[in-house]
Amino acid sequence: MPARNDPVTARLARLRQKLKPRGAPALLVTDPVNVTYMSGFTGDDSWLIAGAGRPCLITDFRYAEQAEHECPGARRVIRRGAMVEALAKVVRQRRLSTLGFDPDSVSVALRARLAKALKDVRLVPVPEVLSSLRARKDEGEVKAIRRAVGVAEEAFREFRRKIRPGMTEGRLAAELDHQMRLAGAECPAFPTICAVDASASMPHHRPGPKRLRRGSVLLVDFGARVAGYVCDLTRVLFAGRIRLQVRWVYGLVQDAQAAAIEKAGPGVPLIEVDKAARKIIQDAGYNDCFQHGTGHGLGMAVHEPPSIGPKGVKGNLEPGMVVTVEPGIYLRGRFGIRIEDDVLVTGSGRQVLTHLEKDLAAMVL
Amino acid sequence: MPARNDPVTARLARLRQKLKPRGAPALLVTDPVNVTYMSGFTGDDSWLIAGAGRPCLITDFRYAEQAEHECPGARRVIRRGAMVEALAKVVRQRRLSTLGFDPDSVSVALRARLAKALKDVRLVPVPEVLSSLRARKDEGEVKAIRRAVGVAEEAFREFRRKIRPGMTEGRLAAELDHQMRLAGAECPAFPTICAVDASASMPHHRPGPKRLRRGSVLLVDFGARVAGYVCDLTRVLFAGRIRLQVRWVYGLVQDAQAAAIEKAGPGVPLIEVDKAARKIIQDAGYNDCFQHGTGHGLGMAVHEPPSIGPKGVKGNLEPGMVVTVEPGIYLRGRFGIRIEDDVLVTGSGRQVLTHLEKDLAAMVL
Repeated sequence: MPARNDPVTARLARLRQKLKPRGAPALLVTDPVNVTYMSGFTGDDSWLIAGAGRPCLITDFRYAEQAEHECPGARRVIRRGAMVEALAKVVRQRRLSTLGFDPDSVSVALRARLAKALKDVRLVPVPEVLSSLRARKDEGEVKAIRRAVGVAEEAFREFRRKIRPGMTEGRLAAELDHQMRLAGAECPAFPTICAVDASASMPHHRPGPKRLRRGSVLLVDFGARVAGYVCDLTRVLFAGRIRLQVRWVYGLVQDAQAAAIEKAGPGVPLIEVDKAARKIIQDAGYNDCFQHGTGHGLGMAVHEPPSIGPKGVKGNLEPGMVVTVEPGIYLRGRFGIRIEDDVLVTGSGRQVLTHLEKDLAAMVL
Repeated sequence: MPARNDPVTARLARLRQKLKPRGAPALLVTDPVNVTYMSGFTGDDSWLIAGAGRPCLITDFRYAEQAEHECPGARRVIRRGAMVEALAKVVRQRRLSTLGFDPDSVSVALRARLAKALKDVRLVPVPEVLSSLRARKDEGEVKAIRRAVGVAEEAFREFRRKIRPGMTEGRLAAELDHQMRLAGAECPAFPTICAVDASASMPHHRPGPKRLRRGSVLLVDFGARVAGYVCDLTRVLFAGRIRLQVRWVYGLVQDAQAAAIEKAGPGVPLIEVDKAARKIIQDAGYNDCFQHGTGHGLGMAVHEPPSIGPKGVKGNLEPGMVVTVEPGIYLRGRFGIRIEDDVLVTGSGRQVLTHLEKDLAAMVL
């Protein structure tokens, strides 16, 4: 029997509070990451009914043992037939007349199958409830993100020692990914970006055959996944002498990042955090060279709410949010600089969770 | 201007034929893999309108250059605002009164946003059109799968040389993944399974701290992703002497696999291929020890139609399909044996695309 104050129990209580005003006593959770979040179960192909009463996990024989181990507090149904039929049985047993679902993770086809299997049940779309719960991390989650940071940073230090002139972007990315695995990552948090010189001017470059040479700029955007949680970091390394313009741009990005981090804190509008970074870049005349947002939430996924951007962004930072702060300047066809750290919003301010050196002098290979 | 007989043009023609009886002259493609399949574009966050007239890709500034390069035959719209608004503009320009969509990849929330932005347009769910197109591979796709096989097999041979007693499952999987990257894979096709002894009795085991010892059974299920296409292979290795029961079970699985491969060919019911393997395992008294299907299609995804299973499976193998054949016997708490190869269905029979040795004598480390 799990302790009353375990994270899953606390999340279920928060979920119930969020569901009350939405008119759905129970929520059908279908997205595997959300199933893990609300139950602790880490397998695939399983659904959870959460909200009213004891949560119920519907899974199959492959996961029977794992489910017993991972979510002792939940009722566990081992289905033999179709998922929707097993669901219908549980819904009948519980006499639920209304069932909430997440319209962002249920497809139109699945919605139709649910409607057919649950004929007398009102299906109510309940958008963004789970993502809003997940946006504020609890203690265990922050600890998990710190572990991911630790693994990624250890791997990056080892990776730096392995870099040799002539290595391709693809080879460099493979080396960093391998070091992350050896350091304890399950896998990279996302496809690692290693971008040399002009490649670094494209924010979403995929590593290719381009080689590192003397004088090259090497942008590395990477993260580790450990125990289901991720981190997301960017550093720029220099193979030898750094040109004056690169120095200048690096300093600007560093200042922009520092300004955004300093701005971050509980109750601060997301748009203000973006503005703090963007103003410095714009004032220096690089308006058009920073076309992405300043940051995003992270946790079980690499991109989660909130989004820290210049427009259409509402809401404030809240205690427990973990966000990236990653301004950049991209000079097409030449080079790009981005510096990215992960920041926890606390009750009174912020705490930077990442510790890799970023002073220019430390970035020379 | 692409040649008239390039794969994308041929796919568009096949799509038009499939759309005709469905009452939708054009299809909105939202799933990124399907966008790639129907246009050649490999970026993210982009949609395609295909069917009537010249295909139209809706993307953003990050991908402008890449889209120009990858899909010269398509109209390219670089959106500034929301995706649905850019879509609405194109739909108005083309005077489309009906637009098909894939109900399996459009969420309920997106369906609602589409309905709002496309007020006067009839949105018609067109299920399984793209997956049925993708099930039959064209020449270029088979070539791509062969390349993925080549990379995975080269990596596996190198991996075998690196195996040492005492290595954990996690370390073994990391080593194989690294070898695949070095051999030219973009990434593993799926999380590599390395399962030692009793772990191998769980078909979806995740590599953990368990160590390889003298006499261990090591099941390795792996694949490479190369140029967007994957392969999927399983081999079982033995660290030293092989126990008699293991020999016996290995032989059975080998016979079951050979029978299913021999059965495979154009027009053969999927269920018959499964039966060919299953009968041998059942006749030997291992009825309950083979609880998954005999195989599945693969291509751009690791699991694609068709599904080769024992029940609820309709349809036949068709020329151009590439499927896995992977029967297994799992003795809970003791060990498991699965042997998996990738098979192309040809006009007259079948061709096994994978060539890694699988005779028992060759599997001893």
